[in-house]
Amino acid sequence: MRTSRLEAFSDGVLAIVITIMVLELRVPESEEGHVATFADLVDAHLVPVIFSYILSFVYIAIYWNNHHHLMSTADHMSGSIMWANMHLLFWLSLVPFSTSWLGESHGAAAPAALYGLILLMAGVAYFVLSRMIIRAGGANSTLARAVGRDRKGEISPVLYALGIVMAFVWTPLSYALYVVVAALWLIPDRRIERLVAAQPDPTE
Amino acid sequence: MRTSRLEAFSDGVLAIVITIMVLELRVPESEEGHVATFADLVDAHLVPVIFSYILSFVYIAIYWNNHHHLMSTADHMSGSIMWANMHLLFWLSLVPFSTSWLGESHGAAAPAALYGLILLMAGVAYFVLSRMIIRAGGANSTLARAVGRDRKGEISPVLYALGIVMAFVWTPLSYALYVVVAALWLIPDRRIERLVAAQPDPTE
Amino acid sequence: MRTSRLEAFSDGVLAIVITIMVLELRVPESEEGHVATFADLVDAHLVPVIFSYILSFVYIAIYWNNHHHLMSTADHMSGSIMWANMHLLFWLSLVPFSTSWLGESHGAAAPAALYGLILLMAGVAYFVLSRMIIRAGGANSTLARAVGRDRKGEISPVLYALGIVMAFVWTPLSYALYVVVAALWLIPDRRIERLVAAQPDPTE
Amino acid sequence: MRTSRLEAFSDGVLAIVITIMVLELRVPESEEGHVATFADLVDAHLVPVIFSYILSFVYIAIYWNNHHHLMSTADHMSGSIMWANMHLLFWLSLVPFSTSWLGESHGAAAPAALYGLILLMAGVAYFVLSRMIIRAGGANSTLARAVGRDRKGEISPVLYALGIVMAFVWTPLSYALYVVVAALWLIPDRRIERLVAAQPDPTE
Repeated sequence: MRTSRLEAFSDGVLAIVITIMVLELRVPESEEGHVATFADLVDAHLVPVIFSYILSFVYIAIYWNNHHHLMSTADHMSGSIMWANMHLLFWLSLVPFSTSWLGESHGAAAPAALYGLILLMAGVAYFVLSRMIIRAGGANSTLARAVGRDRKGEISPVLYALGIVMAFVWTPLSYALYVVVAALWLIPDRRIERLVAAQPDPTE
Repeated sequence: MRTSRLEAFSDGVLAIVITIMVLELRVPESEEGHVATFADLVDAHLVPVIFSYILSFVYIAIYWNNHHHLMSTADHMSGSIMWANMHLLFWLSLVPFSTSWLGESHGAAAPAALYGLILLMAGVAYFVLSRMIIRAGGANSTLARAVGRDRKGEISPVLYALGIVMAFVWTPLSYALYVVVAALWLIPDRRIERLVAAQPDPTE
Repeated sequence: MRTSRLEAFSDGVLAIVITIMVLELRVPESEEGHVATFADLVDAHLVPVIFSYILSFVYIAIYWNNHHHLMSTADHMSGSIMWANMHLLFWLSLVPFSTSWLGESHGAAAPAALYGLILLMAGVAYFVLSRMIIRAGGANSTLARAVGRDRKGEISPVLYALGIVMAFVWTPLSYALYVVVAALWLIPDRRIERLVAAQPDPTE
Repeated sequence: MRTSRLEAFSDGVLAIVITIMVLELRVPESEEGHVATFADLVDAHLVPVIFSYILSFVYIAIYWNNHHHLMSTADHMSGSIMWANMHLLFWLSLVPFSTSWLGESHGAAAPAALYGLILLMAGVAYFVLSRMIIRAGGANSTLARAVGRDRKGEISPVLYALGIVMAFVWTPLSYALYVVVAALWLIPDRRIERLVAAQPDPTE
């Protein structure tokens, strides 16, 4: 029962986070005598705003999906799981802000770095939450599944960190790295696993 | 269990989408000495804003209703169903933006075309989601019900596409087409089915 | 199952409606060198804004409470119940808009009348919804309970209508009438019933 | 069943309250030719805004957690529990407003005092709600657990009141007191209990 309410609250927060970002998509009201055209969307700098909206939408959707799987492996809640979950929601709640700054930044370095930093912190918070759940549950199968999933979880923070650094070197590469991480999580697990299986793995 | 959480998240997103549109309804605060009148609502161009709000409210309500029926036919979830659902929510999350642009457009063509485009994409996303659920379930009865419902689903995209084209020819006709599609879905199924049954159907 | 999802969606909409009204409570950021004081809240006309916020908060809370009781008497859903519910949510979704206009109106007649009109329409929508549920269920006990509750439901629209008219005669009386209706619903049922029982009732 | 819907509605309101505060985090769009930097975040006074956001996020998370525990001890609902809960949600719904004023106040006294006042009123509302639930349930174990928890509940309002007074004496101390109360609730119960157990307790 308690797990379900934590999920319901997290669902609520994630649903709001994913939806309020759309409030950034805003065309200035046309003045008297001006006929609105598609060019107005470009003039209002909506192209980068929409790009950053799509990227963040995909990230929040990935988090919702992973959170949903993670929570289904948790048998009972504890204070530390609840606070680890709140910590994750805190960083995800900052995504609309960093998305908005990224969308309006005209390719500047700082907003791209901040975007990566918040993704990195959310990734760390997710990792902490998963460890808390493993510690509370301790089931062999759950642990195994979590470890099996960890490869993406291990590569992602490295790519986020690289994205933060690259923001100050060549910002477009920074964007590309964030897109790559999202794509990594979007591609169904099995293909990734085969790819990863190609390289020797000391835990097997 | 997993179906219920996907529904809860979708409910959350749709509840927010349907409600944040009301933030567009805004009368500029009356200045000192000015007494607010109903004429202020007209001066603030609220009449077209309210028209577009009602239209979008009805569309989101229709999607919620259909989504609710569709999900009740799904026995088990999969990654593809989850992502098809997110894809649908993405297009529906853009409805407040296109509603806002439509409401402030003073009858311009581009906002009317964009409104239709987003409805069209949401329709396509809904179709993809329903195919994913049919493929996962494969139950005869579910398939049959889905096919039975498909007539509206087949006419709607044609009317949306016509609405997009008409936006550039005669914009009021574009609005009328979007109202017609909404009305098609509002009229209880049985009457429509009788109407459709009048014409020969190769699948029966 | 279907009832619960309709309730979940309605809960979501009402939770958002009751919360986004707080976005109206906004003090302009103090300029450099100015020290924020409580007088700023008065200067920003927050006193009437807070008054209208409290009134609308109470109204939405009353609707949530009554909606919750009404839905618990419904055994099975139908298309007409679902649409009657959406109709109610539509009028309640306009409450933040009319609250905002009322709060900023400096006592003007039109915003007070619009506020009453939206409450009146929500009351009508609630009445229609309750009839739909009675028609679908048809249970004697449910009917009886609904009829027993109806006294407030019959007085409220009369007082709303009076409030709309009074807005143009003497606006403070209009506010008072809206407060009276809210108070009527806040006072626990039993006391009201005794009060009403004092006058002869043809249905008993 | 009725408890769960009250929880679902409260979850919805708290999820929105915790999330809309992020709408305050807003960097003005950079003008043509200006490259966005981290210094812009400082110039937009985002440092105190983020501080107040974190503090309020933690407070709402604490309330959600406590509310969740409190509700799990309630066996059946009543009109008075429902209204006591709405009263609590009312004060918590004002947190985004007081957070926003605090964040933009440049250390002024009035916003710090208002922030404490709203926390104090939410604390009072929580106390009233817990008494209503104890009165309705009357179970020995529930009462005992509630009394056991009360120490923090008794110290908090004293510290809030002190924070309100200190806002006008030395504002930074006011901030510190609000942080201390949040920390008190964040530290796991057992440690606190041992600390409190050190002083003689007449109820044991």
